[in-house]
Amino acid sequence: MLSLDEMGRRAKLAAGTLACSGTDLRNRALELIAQALTGHADEIIAANEADITAAREVGISESLLDRLRFTRERITSTAEGVKKVALLDDPLGRSDGAWTRPNGLRICRMRVPLGVIGIIYEARPNVTADAAALTLKSGNACILRGGKEAIRTNIAVMGLIRSALQKAGLPADCCQIVEDTSHESAQELMRLSRWLDVLIPRGGAGLIRSVVESASVPVIRTGEGNCHVYVDESADIDMAAQIIFNAKTSRPSVCNAAETLLVHQGIAQAFLPAAKKLLDEKHVELRGCARTQAILGPQVKPATEQDWETEYNDYILAVKVVDGIDEAITHINTYGSGHSEAIVTESYANAEKFLSQVDAAAVYVNASTRFTDGYEFGLGAEIGISTQKLHARGPMGLGELTTTKYAVYGSGQIRL
Amino acid sequence: MLSLDEMGRRAKLAAGTLACSGTDLRNRALELIAQALTGHADEIIAANEADITAAREVGISESLLDRLRFTRERITSTAEGVKKVALLDDPLGRSDGAWTRPNGLRICRMRVPLGVIGIIYEARPNVTADAAALTLKSGNACILRGGKEAIRTNIAVMGLIRSALQKAGLPADCCQIVEDTSHESAQELMRLSRWLDVLIPRGGAGLIRSVVESASVPVIRTGEGNCHVYVDESADIDMAAQIIFNAKTSRPSVCNAAETLLVHQGIAQAFLPAAKKLLDEKHVELRGCARTQAILGPQVKPATEQDWETEYNDYILAVKVVDGIDEAITHINTYGSGHSEAIVTESYANAEKFLSQVDAAAVYVNASTRFTDGYEFGLGAEIGISTQKLHARGPMGLGELTTTKYAVYGSGQIRL
Repeated sequence: MLSLDEMGRRAKLAAGTLACSGTDLRNRALELIAQALTGHADEIIAANEADITAAREVGISESLLDRLRFTRERITSTAEGVKKVALLDDPLGRSDGAWTRPNGLRICRMRVPLGVIGIIYEARPNVTADAAALTLKSGNACILRGGKEAIRTNIAVMGLIRSALQKAGLPADCCQIVEDTSHESAQELMRLSRWLDVLIPRGGAGLIRSVVESASVPVIRTGEGNCHVYVDESADIDMAAQIIFNAKTSRPSVCNAAETLLVHQGIAQAFLPAAKKLLDEKHVELRGCARTQAILGPQVKPATEQDWETEYNDYILAVKVVDGIDEAITHINTYGSGHSEAIVTESYANAEKFLSQVDAAAVYVNASTRFTDGYEFGLGAEIGISTQKLHARGPMGLGELTTTKYAVYGSGQIRL
Repeated sequence: MLSLDEMGRRAKLAAGTLACSGTDLRNRALELIAQALTGHADEIIAANEADITAAREVGISESLLDRLRFTRERITSTAEGVKKVALLDDPLGRSDGAWTRPNGLRICRMRVPLGVIGIIYEARPNVTADAAALTLKSGNACILRGGKEAIRTNIAVMGLIRSALQKAGLPADCCQIVEDTSHESAQELMRLSRWLDVLIPRGGAGLIRSVVESASVPVIRTGEGNCHVYVDESADIDMAAQIIFNAKTSRPSVCNAAETLLVHQGIAQAFLPAAKKLLDEKHVELRGCARTQAILGPQVKPATEQDWETEYNDYILAVKVVDGIDEAITHINTYGSGHSEAIVTESYANAEKFLSQVDAAAVYVNASTRFTDGYEFGLGAEIGISTQKLHARGPMGLGELTTTKYAVYGSGQIRL
C-alpha cells in the first residue's frame, strides 16, 4: 500500500499531464471507463457482495446497506452517467477575459484545472466513478477516500478506472483510491496540503464539520441544508401548500429539502390547515411555535430552539408563525445554512426584498427549494452543492472544478 | 474591549446592511473616510509616534521602524488611495449569467459580497485604511487585526473610519479592529468560522503558514513568491539580461521579484556574463550550480537544495544551468510557489509549452515577473496576490472580494 505522500506526489505528476491533455483524449478515457464498468460488472458485484456480507456481520442498518449496494442496474446507470460527462463541454482552455495594457503586455485569463482534488465520502460506491469522471473531465487528478464499508467495491471500481486510463494513454495515477480507511489516514489526507489543491467532503454534517475543523488543505463545504420556505401574507395559498409539500416530502433525505416553514401571521389561519392537509398525506410530523399550535391544535408538538437549527433529513417539519417578512429574513439568516431559501408571495416588493436580503446560495420566489441541483440548474453535472462563499456557491458543475491562470505575452517589458 | 465573538456578531449584522447598500452610499463613505484621514492627520501622527517610541524601546530593527512609520505624506497618499477606490466600478449587483430552464424557472447568478472578511497583517498601518476601503467598496464588513507594533496607529485610524461610516449613514461595525494583539486573539480569529466568511493573511511566509495551519475559516493564501526567470536557448540575450535584472533588483523585497534564474546550457556561456554585468551594478549575490560556477568563476557561491526553495526577498539570486526547457519546467513546478514565472525565448513552440505546462498564477513570455500586481494588470486595486487555486489566483481586485447568489424566479414550480 502506498503512503499518502507518495500518492500525492504521483497525483501531482499525473495532474501535470492531464492539464495539457486534449478534450478528445479525456473523453476517450471516459468512454473506456464506462465500457469497463459495464463489461466487468460481475467483478464489481462480487466485491460489493463481500462488502455487504462484512457490513451485515457488524450489523449496519438497512438504510446504510441499501446505500452500499451496487447492483447491476446501478452500475449500468453509473456507466451511463460517465458517458454523459464525456458529452459535456470541456471547461478547460476557455479565455476568461483578455486585454492589452498600455505597455503592450497582452494579458489572457485562461480556465485551467485546479490540479489535485481530494474527495472524502461515505458509503455510496457510485460516487467513486462519478467523482473520478467529473475530475477527469475537468483535467484534475483525484485522490478518493470512500467509506470503509465500501472499500472492496471501491477498489474494484478504481482498478477498472485505472486500466481504462492507461488504455486511453493517460497516467493511471490520474485517479487513485485510499485503501487505508482508518481514521488516521483521513486525518493525514486532510493535511496533505503539499499535494492537494482542494478537498471536497461529501456526506453528512458530521463528516463535513470534522473536515472543516481538521483540514489544512482548502476545503469546499457541501451539502449542509437547513432550508426554509416562507409563506408571505399575499401568497397564493394553493401554490404555497404545493411548494412546501414538494420541498418537504419529495425527497426528505437530501440537502435541498425544506426543514422549517415560516408563515406570515396574516395568512397563518387560512394557510396552515391547507398545508397540514397535504403534509398529513405523507405523515409529516409537525413541530410548531405557540401560534402554530394555537391554529393547528395540540397534536402539533412544540418546537424548541433546537428545531430551528436542525436539518432533519426526515418527514419532520418545524413551523413558525412570524410577524412579517423581516422576522422571516432574520430567522433564515440566523438559523439557515446558506443553502436554499424560498418565499411564496404575490408582492413584488417582498419578492425583491427577500432575494436581496436573504444570504444563501440560492434564493427562490414561488418555487420549491428542491431545484438547487446541478442538473436542475442546467449545469449538466454536479460534484456537490457548496454552502460556503469561497470559490463556488450552490451547485458545482465542471466549471467549478477549474481555476484560472494568467498567460502574459510580452516583448521585453520591464517594470519601471 | 469586545469579545471576538461579539465583534463577529456585529460584523455579520453590518454586512447584511452593506450587502443591500447602494453604490453611492458606499462611495460617499469612502470619500468621508479619505477626508477624515487627511483632516485628522495630526491625531494619527501622534498615535504613530507613540507606537514608534514603544517600538524603539523594545529595540526593533530600522527596516521594521520604517514600515511602521505613518508620516503625513503616507497618510495623504493612503487617503488618495481611498478616494481612488471610490472611483472604481462597483463589483456588486452584476449578473454573472442568467438563463431560463425548460420548466420556466428563470435563474440569475448575481455578484454579491462575501460577507465578513478577516484580515491579519503585520506592521504597515496603511493596510488598515487600504483594506477597509476595498472591503467596504465591495460591500463586505471587515475585522482587521494588525501587528502589535502599530496598534495605537491602527486604533486611531479605525476610529476615524468608523466615525466616517456613521456620518455616511452606514453602521460603524462595517469596519472593526481587534485591539487585543495577543497570540491567543489571533488564534481565536482564525477559528471564528461562525462569523467570518474568509480570512486573508497579508505578510511574511511565517504568518501565512501559521494561518493556513490553524484556521478553520476559509483562507486565501497570498504573497508567497518563489519566482523564476528561465532563459531559453533562443533568447535575445540583451532582453533576457534586462528582464532578470528588473525582476531581481527593481524591488527585491516584494513577492513578484525573481529568486532563481534558470539558463539553458546552450546559451549559458554567452548569457551569464552579460547578466552578471548588470546584476553586479546592484551588488547582487549569486549562488550557482556547478555549471554556473564553471562559467562565472569561483566568486559565485555554490547553491544548495535550500537555495532552490528560498524566497530571499533580498539582493541574492540563485542560478542554475539546465539541460533544456523540460528541466526548467520541472524545476519550477517542483520549487516554485505558484506565483509568477517567466520564460525569455524567441521560440514560439517553447513559449507555448512554458505557458501551458508551468503551474502558476501568472506565466510570462518575454516580460518581467514584476508585473503581477492588481494595478499593473489593470484591475484598479489589489487586496493581495493569491497563490492558491481556490476562489482567486493571482492579483485580487474588487471582483475577487465577491461571490455569487442564485436568484431564482418561479411561478409555482415544484420538482417532479
